[in-house]
Amino acid sequence: MSSLPSPPRLDVLAMGDAMVDVIAPADDAFLVREGLPKGSMRLIDAAEAARLYALMGPAKATSGGSAANTAAGLAALGRRVGFVGQVADDQLGAIFAHDLRAQGVEYGTPRCADGTPTGRCLILVTPDAQRTMNTHAGASHRLTVADLDEGQIRDAAILYLEAYLWAAPGPRAAMQRAAGIARDAGRRVAFTLSDVACIRRDRDALVELIDAGLVDLLFGNEAEICAIASEPDFDRAVDKLAGRVPLLVATCGAQGALAVDRGERVTVPAVWVTSVVDTTGAGDLFAAGFLAGDAEGRPTAQCLRMGALAASEVIAHYGARPETDLRALFARELAA
Amino acid sequence: MSSLPSPPRLDVLAMGDAMVDVIAPADDAFLVREGLPKGSMRLIDAAEAARLYALMGPAKATSGGSAANTAAGLAALGRRVGFVGQVADDQLGAIFAHDLRAQGVEYGTPRCADGTPTGRCLILVTPDAQRTMNTHAGASHRLTVADLDEGQIRDAAILYLEAYLWAAPGPRAAMQRAAGIARDAGRRVAFTLSDVACIRRDRDALVELIDAGLVDLLFGNEAEICAIASEPDFDRAVDKLAGRVPLLVATCGAQGALAVDRGERVTVPAVWVTSVVDTTGAGDLFAAGFLAGDAEGRPTAQCLRMGALAASEVIAHYGARPETDLRALFARELAA
Repeated sequence: MSSLPSPPRLDVLAMGDAMVDVIAPADDAFLVREGLPKGSMRLIDAAEAARLYALMGPAKATSGGSAANTAAGLAALGRRVGFVGQVADDQLGAIFAHDLRAQGVEYGTPRCADGTPTGRCLILVTPDAQRTMNTHAGASHRLTVADLDEGQIRDAAILYLEAYLWAAPGPRAAMQRAAGIARDAGRRVAFTLSDVACIRRDRDALVELIDAGLVDLLFGNEAEICAIASEPDFDRAVDKLAGRVPLLVATCGAQGALAVDRGERVTVPAVWVTSVVDTTGAGDLFAAGFLAGDAEGRPTAQCLRMGALAASEVIAHYGARPETDLRALFARELAA
Repeated sequence: MSSLPSPPRLDVLAMGDAMVDVIAPADDAFLVREGLPKGSMRLIDAAEAARLYALMGPAKATSGGSAANTAAGLAALGRRVGFVGQVADDQLGAIFAHDLRAQGVEYGTPRCADGTPTGRCLILVTPDAQRTMNTHAGASHRLTVADLDEGQIRDAAILYLEAYLWAAPGPRAAMQRAAGIARDAGRRVAFTLSDVACIRRDRDALVELIDAGLVDLLFGNEAEICAIASEPDFDRAVDKLAGRVPLLVATCGAQGALAVDRGERVTVPAVWVTSVVDTTGAGDLFAAGFLAGDAEGRPTAQCLRMGALAASEVIAHYGARPETDLRALFARELAA
């Protein structure tokens, strides 16, 4: 006789980089001079972070981290959500922890004690609203299996993992362990592909995770879906992946989004935004909106629409966390 | 035979608090619960800063400090400007120094080495765009005479001092010394009154500075002008002060601004702003616009109009530093 899982205390437990974003406008010439492909993410060390920061204009600091942004969005939508990710006992770490808890996210990962500072992401936003990210992972990539709270993982209906954190061996082992705990507790595991560079670096381990049947929901944009499927044609990549995960969700920028839910394909258009300022966090907030709909038991098309709506809010301003009342926005827009 | 001062290398050297602003929206009920008079500034210790921060919502961190904001505004307007103010060798100090230098401000004050962290200002912005400030001065108030660069002071056409920094004895002595150096070098001294609480705390020393003839330009809002003149009627307060400083500049919020330049009274209306978001920095940027006009040798009415225009930019967004291209804005608006 198998025991049924107990009702989850959290809708989602997100696990990812714990970062403060340092955002400054930049022109295309700056990216060219620095040899940075627009829209990309790269990992940099402390020396390169200091060098690049000195070249950047006056900046805003806001809490970031992809899965952490998704957690903040879910909390802003009224869901019960936790976050796992590591900061140091420093000023940026205090800012990160404050912003997450002030948003209503449960957050108690032990702080990194080996002297590595809190991670930061230097983000250059060009006039076309594209973001180019330079991540100094810092304490974020010091996370280990020992930092996990197994009870918290068992208590969440969905464990949500990001590929950015997959880049470092310690955190990757922690994520693999967390996925195992979640599955043993009868929970679902979601994975977001984050960035093509992350996928290329550790594709085999990622494919293994998927083919072991450990991923119930897979999120990605067109390039990431193609990269993980090793298939340059997006439609064929979707077909190749759809049989290997129960639910596949793909964002297609201004073209909207699609999901394949147990073989059934659903698409929605993007939500039109008057003035797109900074696309940082668009995918993160899309996932928040989608998962909020999922937690409410809504049909896939509605979940996609909620994702598109949450993304539309975050791209209308600098910073990757919601700034307006998302619940009020949803009440207004979804009733229409 | 007296020697003439050499041509100044800097248009303005600003001296004030070196702070990172931590800005979060708050409702009126929050201010009531905390017993905070709307629009006020108070000094708080580390324990109170930690307590209040924990109650605040998710926040944005941006470099602040009143005179530092004025320096940033002057640099954004293409003027040569320096800043004197103290941070610690910590993450917030690095953010403050970066933002100032990235804006083009000369900044080399030695960092505080006694372990006091960089100052921060917890700013609550209510839906009516008013800001209520809670300042943990930190390293900012550890500034001493020994931190001054006498050559830099002698090299600036105007030394610009803020009353916020006047609150602490070490910095006050440094400001008095700096004013003496500037005067001995044949430079002008400007003083901004900052806040009624600052004036009340050290009014005698401030009146003494004015009546010793050490203040050439005095900036203040209506309440501050009344407080320093010990005269509840604003017009009479202006009359009482105008004879004691060569140039008196008063901001009157939505009513605009006035100046009394060697007895001649000039007024301008405020610049109309469609959506006022956060009034933090309005006075600081007004002073920047005015001083930029002064450096360009413009008539007082034009200096006032430039002040009003710079203030209009900063109140249209969160944060006390300019976010749009002020020179382009000025070229467009002042040509009209």
